[in-house]
Amino acid sequence: MTLRKVIFDTDPGVDDAMALLFLHHAPEVELAGITTTFGNGTIDQTTFNALYIAERFGIAAPVARGAGAPLVGAAMAPPDFVHGRNALGDVALPAQLRARADPRPAYRFIIDAVRAAPHEISIVAVGRMTNLALTLREEPGIASLVKEIVVMGGAFGIAGVQGNVTPAAEANIIGDPEAADEIAAADWPITFVGLDVTQKTRMSTDFLADLAEKSGESGHFVWDISRFYEAFHQAGGVSSIYVHDSSAVAYFLKPELFTTRSGAIRVSTDGITRGMTVQKPDTLSYPPGAWDGRPSHRVCTSVDSDGLLDLYRSTLIEAR
Amino acid sequence: MTLRKVIFDTDPGVDDAMALLFLHHAPEVELAGITTTFGNGTIDQTTFNALYIAERFGIAAPVARGAGAPLVGAAMAPPDFVHGRNALGDVALPAQLRARADPRPAYRFIIDAVRAAPHEISIVAVGRMTNLALTLREEPGIASLVKEIVVMGGAFGIAGVQGNVTPAAEANIIGDPEAADEIAAADWPITFVGLDVTQKTRMSTDFLADLAEKSGESGHFVWDISRFYEAFHQAGGVSSIYVHDSSAVAYFLKPELFTTRSGAIRVSTDGITRGMTVQKPDTLSYPPGAWDGRPSHRVCTSVDSDGLLDLYRSTLIEAR
Repeated sequence: MTLRKVIFDTDPGVDDAMALLFLHHAPEVELAGITTTFGNGTIDQTTFNALYIAERFGIAAPVARGAGAPLVGAAMAPPDFVHGRNALGDVALPAQLRARADPRPAYRFIIDAVRAAPHEISIVAVGRMTNLALTLREEPGIASLVKEIVVMGGAFGIAGVQGNVTPAAEANIIGDPEAADEIAAADWPITFVGLDVTQKTRMSTDFLADLAEKSGESGHFVWDISRFYEAFHQAGGVSSIYVHDSSAVAYFLKPELFTTRSGAIRVSTDGITRGMTVQKPDTLSYPPGAWDGRPSHRVCTSVDSDGLLDLYRSTLIEAR
Repeated sequence: MTLRKVIFDTDPGVDDAMALLFLHHAPEVELAGITTTFGNGTIDQTTFNALYIAERFGIAAPVARGAGAPLVGAAMAPPDFVHGRNALGDVALPAQLRARADPRPAYRFIIDAVRAAPHEISIVAVGRMTNLALTLREEPGIASLVKEIVVMGGAFGIAGVQGNVTPAAEANIIGDPEAADEIAAADWPITFVGLDVTQKTRMSTDFLADLAEKSGESGHFVWDISRFYEAFHQAGGVSSIYVHDSSAVAYFLKPELFTTRSGAIRVSTDGITRGMTVQKPDTLSYPPGAWDGRPSHRVCTSVDSDGLLDLYRSTLIEAR
């Protein structure tokens, strides 16, 4: 089997860690690198967490430290009420690691990896879009050499789903709206896996308990880190955890689980809608405006949630 | 029967005229006034059109001329490609009218009418929100004396429906976003009937032809003015005309045709989302933000389209 090369751009983060294990255990995937970004924790914390997971689970991919702040302004405070103070649900973490980060910054790592294997590397980006924007700024021509980008981010008003940081904006995008608008301007094939679909798929306590029982160390780890995250959901009246970042991995692995809509995408950087993602579907016509001249990207509009959960479960269990 | 008093704030406009006849013929309604605004035509044209319809159909309500421009900046060019150059589908109009507008500006007319019948007057507003915003600016206390406001405007991302002037914004709201944001800040009960539902109900050529046959002069007039409007829809790939303004009238007459969602509403005045309406549903919690401290208003989330069409048809036919 020719393996599918992927760089995972991430801010672990409970659901990031769950998605990383999903990708690591998928038999058809070669994890070519892990690049980190601020978001669910500080860049120090998320880089530590990525190295820890790589070390604990024997993930051979290099970990390259990425951006610690958005393109404009300061980073928002990490959402420790969602992911815990250490961003991994406050499970015990070692004080020190043997693993070390790659010496290159994330954007340079991405450029080098893509140049070394042009048209072969996909990027699954589940944190702020800062590293991808810096990659484009450093080397705009890289866009044509990337095979595919799958983003967890945005809320596109597909089915009454709204933002999760404001009524308009989703966390990964409001965390760096300028970066998100820049990457959507580039002509590389992006699929946005937004809250419109990630909130439609949920992992129940029973599902997670079953994983813990049947999928060995990965299942146990997922169980442990998801306790805090689940309690946050339940405090908000959501009994089962949303499947955010793993939905992006699922799209990468099996896009037929989703339906999509194609069109140019802008990200609001202004006022009350800052961080909002708005697509102009290719099927609709408007007077000249801010979406003109931008490439079409895909936005997920629906998901086969049962199929996605089955894929996650079987991937972790069969990897045991 | 105690009649329900209503002021119709409008920029006729093909669908405005259709909605005005709907209201005029509804047996339970006392049309207490018609206030005009720029929008589908200039304020000269829309006021002329309102007077013309009132004269032609024997509508006794006074017509008060309203705003000719938005609160901020200049009016957008009237959408003559939608409503025709005379905003009534380019049907022949008389050069002169006997009817004269009320001497008061619309906002003063509204204040006087509401003061004269406190808690009795509803307002169905199907144009730019400028007159209502000027009413509030002139006399903020009026909000507590208005019975109900039904607005045709906005696009709330309920079911993948987007704006019709930009991917983010609907015409009535982008025509004066500052006014819309001001009226949504006031504590009077507003229901927004947005594109989310108005694009779900359509009048086919057969439906309109049947009206023309069975509902006398009103049906003939609706047929005549809707030819241009229908051609615009069909050129855009929509075979039957959307029922915009008449959906607001239908909500006023029979709210049980709709489902609604309650929550604070903001209108974007900035950047690419200018004119976008965003509700914070009362059921969702967010960190402190721009929606805080605002009153809840209703947004329509679904409509019984068949019931709405039946109501329109029977109202016009029974009035014959």
